[in-house]
Amino acid sequence: MKLNFDESLSLIKRGTAEILPEKELEERLKSGRKLRVKAGFDPTAPDLHLGHTVLLNKLKHFQDLGHEVLFLIGDFTGMIGDPSGKNITRLPLTREQVVENAKTYQAQVFKILNPDKTQILFNSEWLGDKSAADLIQIAGKYTVARMLERDDFYKRYTSNQPIAIHEFLYPLLQGYDSVAMHADIELGGNDQKFNLLVGRELQKHYGQPQQVVITMPLLEGLDGDKKMSKSLNNYIGIDESPDNMFGKIMSISDDLMWRYLELLSFKSQQEIQQWKLETQQGKNPRDIKILFAEEIITRFHSLQDAKRAHENFANRFQKHQLPKEIPEIAVQISENFIPLVNLLKTAGLASGTTDARRLIQNNAVRIDGEKISDADLKIAVNTQHIYQVGKLRIAKISATPTSLRERSSKQSRDTTTDTEDWISSSRKKTRDSQ
Amino acid sequence: MKLNFDESLSLIKRGTAEILPEKELEERLKSGRKLRVKAGFDPTAPDLHLGHTVLLNKLKHFQDLGHEVLFLIGDFTGMIGDPSGKNITRLPLTREQVVENAKTYQAQVFKILNPDKTQILFNSEWLGDKSAADLIQIAGKYTVARMLERDDFYKRYTSNQPIAIHEFLYPLLQGYDSVAMHADIELGGNDQKFNLLVGRELQKHYGQPQQVVITMPLLEGLDGDKKMSKSLNNYIGIDESPDNMFGKIMSISDDLMWRYLELLSFKSQQEIQQWKLETQQGKNPRDIKILFAEEIITRFHSLQDAKRAHENFANRFQKHQLPKEIPEIAVQISENFIPLVNLLKTAGLASGTTDARRLIQNNAVRIDGEKISDADLKIAVNTQHIYQVGKLRIAKISATPTSLRERSSKQSRDTTTDTEDWISSSRKKTRDSQ
Repeated sequence: MKLNFDESLSLIKRGTAEILPEKELEERLKSGRKLRVKAGFDPTAPDLHLGHTVLLNKLKHFQDLGHEVLFLIGDFTGMIGDPSGKNITRLPLTREQVVENAKTYQAQVFKILNPDKTQILFNSEWLGDKSAADLIQIAGKYTVARMLERDDFYKRYTSNQPIAIHEFLYPLLQGYDSVAMHADIELGGNDQKFNLLVGRELQKHYGQPQQVVITMPLLEGLDGDKKMSKSLNNYIGIDESPDNMFGKIMSISDDLMWRYLELLSFKSQQEIQQWKLETQQGKNPRDIKILFAEEIITRFHSLQDAKRAHENFANRFQKHQLPKEIPEIAVQISENFIPLVNLLKTAGLASGTTDARRLIQNNAVRIDGEKISDADLKIAVNTQHIYQVGKLRIAKISATPTSLRERSSKQSRDTTTDTEDWISSSRKKTRDSQ
Repeated sequence: MKLNFDESLSLIKRGTAEILPEKELEERLKSGRKLRVKAGFDPTAPDLHLGHTVLLNKLKHFQDLGHEVLFLIGDFTGMIGDPSGKNITRLPLTREQVVENAKTYQAQVFKILNPDKTQILFNSEWLGDKSAADLIQIAGKYTVARMLERDDFYKRYTSNQPIAIHEFLYPLLQGYDSVAMHADIELGGNDQKFNLLVGRELQKHYGQPQQVVITMPLLEGLDGDKKMSKSLNNYIGIDESPDNMFGKIMSISDDLMWRYLELLSFKSQQEIQQWKLETQQGKNPRDIKILFAEEIITRFHSLQDAKRAHENFANRFQKHQLPKEIPEIAVQISENFIPLVNLLKTAGLASGTTDARRLIQNNAVRIDGEKISDADLKIAVNTQHIYQVGKLRIAKISATPTSLRERSSKQSRDTTTDTEDWISSSRKKTRDSQ
């Protein structure tokens, strides 16, 4: 990719949350050196969705500009497990599991990253040999007070939630990784900002140039509201079928479409700007969603798959003869999810939950044209889909929260209890926290 | 020593500050097992004074009852030095220095302890092999909040004084020592209570019976006020000459004499009780001080030395023909010390500081009968001595603080800034704190 300096800088800055400090980034880019760009990842079995690829896409930008990506798998702490013994689900990983997971990673991330410009590293390489005395040396470089400034630590400390002392060591080890790797730049989710800055601090202590920290926003899920996550069922997995991907992308709101284009598309900023203009002049956003869906499916499957998914989508809607006018129904729900059978009953598409269950079992229920076989399926709040029961009953149903006030308090609770989610950033905070 | 259970318990409890929990101590003593009694010591060059021997005496009580003393030299952290790099005086010790210091220790402590019932241990033995991962495991067993409950940490945190994170690891390592040593009991100064309790906690985590914690008070210095310490010049070193020891012991107040007897004498509690009765009936406390001085000198030198020191003391006072009536003068001082030359001037024993200096250089000045040759000598506050200049000028001078209120604020400052002092407890808090 041949870009001048301003274009390169603009590409790097696209979609970022923060660059700390931006001036140093410019200096590094101007140096003409091949920069060492670090990003850390959990050693747990990856099952990536588009949310995770925001970071990978940014790494790809650096590769496109000729730099080297250091893909760090944080296996050292993964193999320790949870020393406090409180989190029984955090069993220590074996070396075999780590290696196995790393293979799965490679299969997935090399759909985006260029293998020739990617080094896969394991921090057990340099941390595994460290002695207790070495760790004490590292721990001497940072203070308790500064560690307690980290948002989640501060909240837990002030609300009397226990923090085990080893949790203070993990950000230091993560920071030491930057020392061992001589990182020029480290990327992470914006919830990782603190930990990334620890790396800067430790590099200074070890007499190295300090890495530039770049954080990426967390991608919103299909609902356009909460961050994309498995547990909220608002995600697009990168291993999902082309048809699923197509349907899900077509279901997003027009606003969210622009957000996804910025963070997920490889189209140039100029091109996207052009589309915005055209939309303002009357172009149907659906046509842009189709192009975007094809781009994403091509990336993770193939161009042929993308075209076929598009056809299938069109056929499905034609075959099922969707009426031009579909009634819109809002169903207010007080939880984050509603069982599909309850939704159908409440919206009047089934006479009761038993009826709804029977209809699903008879393959008579479709969501966005797709046949549903799971009678226990749950529908997330803040989603809008077209529900069909048989040929005749059809409605666009929005699952909306009971009231804004209630939803907002619920949301903050969800954010803290969502432990299953593999977030786009490297080792995430909740992982440290257990 | 043949004591019944109640007598044994009474001996163990003599002079202690706290026993945690006392019930468990009784159970251990009743078990009939040979108990493993741990006490930890700094690996720095020791130069013990009577204050340090309070703890050693208690260890000796356990030996007298048939138990085993584990004399732990904390060389592991001593060989690390100060990882924060802030304390340039805390250079890492080499193994050779540690071994050398240990020899000096043995020469000193075996004047009190029975070598046959003492194991000298170095914690580098088990901590030296520990990996960073092992240390993380240990750190997972304790919380940040509980560590911040330790007095000095809490004060520093709330007053924005930095605490480096490795300082949180040291109490854990000290606690882990108890695990590695399978300690039944750990002794320390009462400023060590928190660290000793960490040992209890960690033993529980590692599935061991928890050690009983016994803390000893810090011994007051010759002034009867502040704790005994080199830097306050209110100490009796165990390597001091018999004459010095005798003179210093004779100079203490009658109240302090009873305190010293409790913590430093090996006379039985019954015997001491008997002396108290006799004193109430008119016995001169001076006679008890003489017996006590002879006991201490016999312990650290020999019986012959003790007798000779007694004679010398008596002769000195006779030879210099101290008048029966000596004027008493109180000199108020605002610092912790006053230069001897200033004291002599203020008390009117010299016409000025230059005169005083000349008199000292001419060997004309004595304190408690002892010739003074150091013209820069400083006299501590709260001391009372007999000062002679030539044959004629003589006075009993008390160096008293300017006002109680001022002194008390000064005292608390001294306590926190006194870093040179080697306290009677094992690894002291200020050491961890640097």
